[in-house]
Amino acid sequence: MTLLVFGHKNPDTDSICSSISLTYLKNQLGNTAKAYALGEVRKEAQYVLDYFKVDAPTVLSSISNICKDDANLVLEGKPQVVLVDHNEYGQSIDGLEDAELVEVVDHHKLGGMQTSTPLSMRLMPVGCTCTIITQMFKENNIEIPYEIAGLLMSAILSDTLLFKSPTTTDMDKKAVEELNKIVKVDVEKYAMDMFKAGSSLDGFTVEEIVNMDFKPFDMEGKKVGIGQVFTLDIDAVLNKQDEFLNYINNTDFDMLVLAITDIIKEGSYLIYKAEDKIISDAFGVNASQGVFVEGAVSRKKQLVPNLTEAVKKNI
Amino acid sequence: MTLLVFGHKNPDTDSICSSISLTYLKNQLGNTAKAYALGEVRKEAQYVLDYFKVDAPTVLSSISNICKDDANLVLEGKPQVVLVDHNEYGQSIDGLEDAELVEVVDHHKLGGMQTSTPLSMRLMPVGCTCTIITQMFKENNIEIPYEIAGLLMSAILSDTLLFKSPTTTDMDKKAVEELNKIVKVDVEKYAMDMFKAGSSLDGFTVEEIVNMDFKPFDMEGKKVGIGQVFTLDIDAVLNKQDEFLNYINNTDFDMLVLAITDIIKEGSYLIYKAEDKIISDAFGVNASQGVFVEGAVSRKKQLVPNLTEAVKKNI
Repeated sequence: MTLLVFGHKNPDTDSICSSISLTYLKNQLGNTAKAYALGEVRKEAQYVLDYFKVDAPTVLSSISNICKDDANLVLEGKPQVVLVDHNEYGQSIDGLEDAELVEVVDHHKLGGMQTSTPLSMRLMPVGCTCTIITQMFKENNIEIPYEIAGLLMSAILSDTLLFKSPTTTDMDKKAVEELNKIVKVDVEKYAMDMFKAGSSLDGFTVEEIVNMDFKPFDMEGKKVGIGQVFTLDIDAVLNKQDEFLNYINNTDFDMLVLAITDIIKEGSYLIYKAEDKIISDAFGVNASQGVFVEGAVSRKKQLVPNLTEAVKKNI
Repeated sequence: MTLLVFGHKNPDTDSICSSISLTYLKNQLGNTAKAYALGEVRKEAQYVLDYFKVDAPTVLSSISNICKDDANLVLEGKPQVVLVDHNEYGQSIDGLEDAELVEVVDHHKLGGMQTSTPLSMRLMPVGCTCTIITQMFKENNIEIPYEIAGLLMSAILSDTLLFKSPTTTDMDKKAVEELNKIVKVDVEKYAMDMFKAGSSLDGFTVEEIVNMDFKPFDMEGKKVGIGQVFTLDIDAVLNKQDEFLNYINNTDFDMLVLAITDIIKEGSYLIYKAEDKIISDAFGVNASQGVFVEGAVSRKKQLVPNLTEAVKKNI
C-alpha cells in the first residue's frame, strides 16, 4: 500500500523538499511511499528542484480525486497519508477525514487534529521540517544522497531565511553544516541565488511592479502613493531605475515612493517622486534615487508614519 | 524553570514509569525536570517502584494548585508541562490551558489538543510509552541506569500484558530484550509477580470478592448470580475455595457462579453453586469446583449465554 506524503496547500520550499526527502527515507526503510504536493511548485522550490535535478511532485487536488490526479496510483481501501510541514485540517488536503493518517512530521504549533487510531507523530520546535527529517535519517542510519541533502539544506535555508529568522535553532544550523558536507556549496551564495530566483521579478513590467502592492494615502492634502515589493533580485529593479522613474514621475500622485524591500539586509531601497528633503527627513538618510534605508521593512509601521511626519514638517 | 512531567489521570504503570524515566532523560540532557502523577500510584506500579527502590511521584491536583501540591516547586511565569502516555485534555490535569505545553510523548491516537506555539511531540503506534522513551535514550546516547531500565521494562510488560496484547509491536519486544541486559531478571516470572501484585485481592473478604462485580439474572424462573474478578493472584482465591463455597452456598440464589478470570491464561476458574451437569454442559468441561474454562473471559458474551442455554436444556 502506497503512503501518500505531502506538505501544506500553497506549498513552500519546505513542504516540497520535506515531502520528497521523507518519501526517500520511508522507501529506504522498506515502505512504499510517494511524494505529492497540494499545489503548483513556486519559483523558489522550482529553483531547488532544477539545481538538484529532481522532478516536481504530482499535484493532488483532494482525497476523492487522487486516482484522477495520479493515474499510476493503485489504492486498496482507504488511502494512507503522511503529512509534512503542517498538522491542521485547514491547511491540508480536502477530504483528509476519508484517509488514514499514519504519520506527521512538522515544526508548527499543534493544530487540533484527531485520529481514531495511534499514529507516528514527530513535532519539534525548530526552524524547518527538513531539520527534523535530517535528524530522522541519522537516527535510522540511512545515508543521505547528494540530491536529497541538497533539498533538505535548501528548505532549511529557506525557512530560516539563511538563519536570520527568529525561529532558527542551533539544530537547524548544525543540520545545514552536516548536509553541506555532502552538497559542498558556498552556502551563503547558494541561499542568495535561491532567494533571488524565488523573489524574481522577471516577466513583470515596470508598471506591474510598482502596482504589485500599492496603496494611496492623503497626507496634509497631498496625494501620496506607496508601493512595496519584497525581492532579493534588487539589481533587476535598480538597473531599470530610469524606467521606474519615468513611469513614477508621469503618474498624477504628488508624491510616490516605491520601496524595494530586501528581507535579508532588512531594509528597503527607495525610488521616489518626492523632494529629496522629505525623504531625507522621513528616513534620516542623505536622499537620492535608489537610496538604501536600513531597518525600514514595514509600510504600515515605518514608511507611512515617517513620511506623514516629514510631509507635515515640510508644509 | 522546572519542567513538570506527568501521565494521565488515574495513572497506570506506564504513566508512572514514563514520567519518571523521561524526567531522568531530560535532566541528563541539561533540563530541570520533575516527575509528577495525576493520582495515587496503584498496586501494580507500587510493586515496580518498591522492586527498583524508586520514590513515588508527588501527586498534582490541578494547575492552579501545583504550588500547594508541591511546596518545593518554584514557578516563574506559566508552568511548563510535559505530557506522557496521553494527549487529550479530558485525560490530563485540570487547568492545562493555563500551562505551557512544551512536549508530549505518547502511544495513543491523536486527541485534538491545540497549542499557540510549536512544541516537541513524539507519538508512535507501539504498545507502550516507555518503548518510545527507551528509543529516545538510545537516540540521545544516554546510558540507562539499572532502576530506570527496570521501570521502562516493567511498563512495557504491563501495557503489552507480557506481549499478549494485540497492541504489542516488535519494537516493544526488542526494547524489553535490551532493557533486560541491564535489569537481568527472569522476564516471565517478574511480569507474573508484577501482575499478581497489581491484581492482588489481599485485604478483601470472601464476601467482598464475590460481590466486587456481581450481576443477578433470571434464567427460566431460576434466580442466577454471576460474579467475576480479574486477577492473576489465582491461588489466593483457590486456596480459600471452601470459604468461598460456604459463602456462596448460603446465599438465596438458585445458582451462583464466581468466575476468577486470568487474563494471561485467557480463561476463568469457576467456583459455583450449581449442578455439575449444568456447568459441564454450559462450558464443555468435566465440571468440578475450581475448574478452568479456557477462552471464557467475557460475562456478557460467554458466561451468560452459555449458562442460559444449559439451564434451558436441563429443565
